[in-house]
Amino acid sequence: MLSNIRIVLVQTFHPGNIGQAARAMKTMGLTDLVLVNPRCFPDDEATRLAAGAEDLVQRARVVDSLAAAVNDCVQVVGASARLRSLSLPFHDEPDAMARELVANAETDPVALVFGRERFGLTNDELRHCSQQVSIPANPEYGVLNLSQAVQVLAYEVFRAWRHRPESGFVPQRPPHDRPPTREQLDHFHAHLQRVMQASGFLTQPHARTEEQLQALFARAQPSRKELSLLRGLLSALEPKDTRDD
Amino acid sequence: MLSNIRIVLVQTFHPGNIGQAARAMKTMGLTDLVLVNPRCFPDDEATRLAAGAEDLVQRARVVDSLAAAVNDCVQVVGASARLRSLSLPFHDEPDAMARELVANAETDPVALVFGRERFGLTNDELRHCSQQVSIPANPEYGVLNLSQAVQVLAYEVFRAWRHRPESGFVPQRPPHDRPPTREQLDHFHAHLQRVMQASGFLTQPHARTEEQLQALFARAQPSRKELSLLRGLLSALEPKDTRDD
Repeated sequence: MLSNIRIVLVQTFHPGNIGQAARAMKTMGLTDLVLVNPRCFPDDEATRLAAGAEDLVQRARVVDSLAAAVNDCVQVVGASARLRSLSLPFHDEPDAMARELVANAETDPVALVFGRERFGLTNDELRHCSQQVSIPANPEYGVLNLSQAVQVLAYEVFRAWRHRPESGFVPQRPPHDRPPTREQLDHFHAHLQRVMQASGFLTQPHARTEEQLQALFARAQPSRKELSLLRGLLSALEPKDTRDD
Repeated sequence: MLSNIRIVLVQTFHPGNIGQAARAMKTMGLTDLVLVNPRCFPDDEATRLAAGAEDLVQRARVVDSLAAAVNDCVQVVGASARLRSLSLPFHDEPDAMARELVANAETDPVALVFGRERFGLTNDELRHCSQQVSIPANPEYGVLNLSQAVQVLAYEVFRAWRHRPESGFVPQRPPHDRPPTREQLDHFHAHLQRVMQASGFLTQPHARTEEQLQALFARAQPSRKELSLLRGLLSALEPKDTRDD
């Protein structure tokens, strides 16, 4: 359940990052934001950059320790730009982390913890985590902006959630045009062949060429309307004395 | 090849978004940025928010039409908050889009096109695209900030690339501690059993309890050093007159 997934930001320096993180969260269905000792909060910058997610910013809980932020959680994942050599279990694939987090979130609160813009999380804060995760990135320039890191991990969490059958998430799809029947396709192939021969492009039936063109059109997956359109074009291209139907 | 993957931003309103987009690109190994009619560029905000990715901003090509930006590309994917009901093929899973894009980028330039912050891409601009992609999001609040959208799609592109065997990408992993041998584990189990009996916790061998605890420790996957630590703890807990080795 997405509402069980908490985003915890520790000692965020720029209030603007809080606002952008809130926006990132909301686009991915997350609503529970907790701030541990933010440097500057509440702040107009946080509200301004939340751009439609001000409700998350206003409802954000402010606490003075990471323990207070996550004590009720059954899983706490610390996001780190560099995996520390602690014995803390790590995920180097955010999607695997997200699947585990979402599974636990079915029944209990869980948390994703992000550290300071410059310094990340301290080793002591990582001890409040059950695992760490890092976002695989360019080895030469791999530190994402804080709110961008929130966006990427929130995106993976939302993805793990919507892939679960019980989520009921309906992907947006453009309206579906009906595909043609095999018979309609056969008529089209026959029409295409007639036009290729009548135009002199083929002097006799040529299986290979016809096959290639049929495959091309098959890949295009024409709808009924589009097939109609193609038939109309073929008719217009057909030399007048060979027109059939 | 990541260098074949172009990010095109059309008529970006806020120069700060250009800077943040450049940073997002660079964290994911992308370097080719093209701006179509940016409202305000060059601009200090773009440089300031690029934060280490100023080189991408400085090298960004500025053109006055989308055609000029993508004419050499073999695949052009338009990112759209809402899938339009055009016949344009669509991807509603960014990861599938990314795999296709990266495959084509092995040999030719390809492009990911992003529109204006408020209005996205025009239908006319979408006609310069071979496909459209949208980032699945909260149906009630689904429009990501422009640079966040760039970050998410760049993340998926980088992921598709590093999963290809030829990429040579090495995930960062903390140093690996050697696991124990079966024999060392058997000694540990025997030691654990002795302590459980000697302490009075078990009055006789109890297969179920021993099995459960062995399974718990097996899940923890102790390293050799950790097993040593546990053996030391068990020794300290053992009543003095029953200590064995």
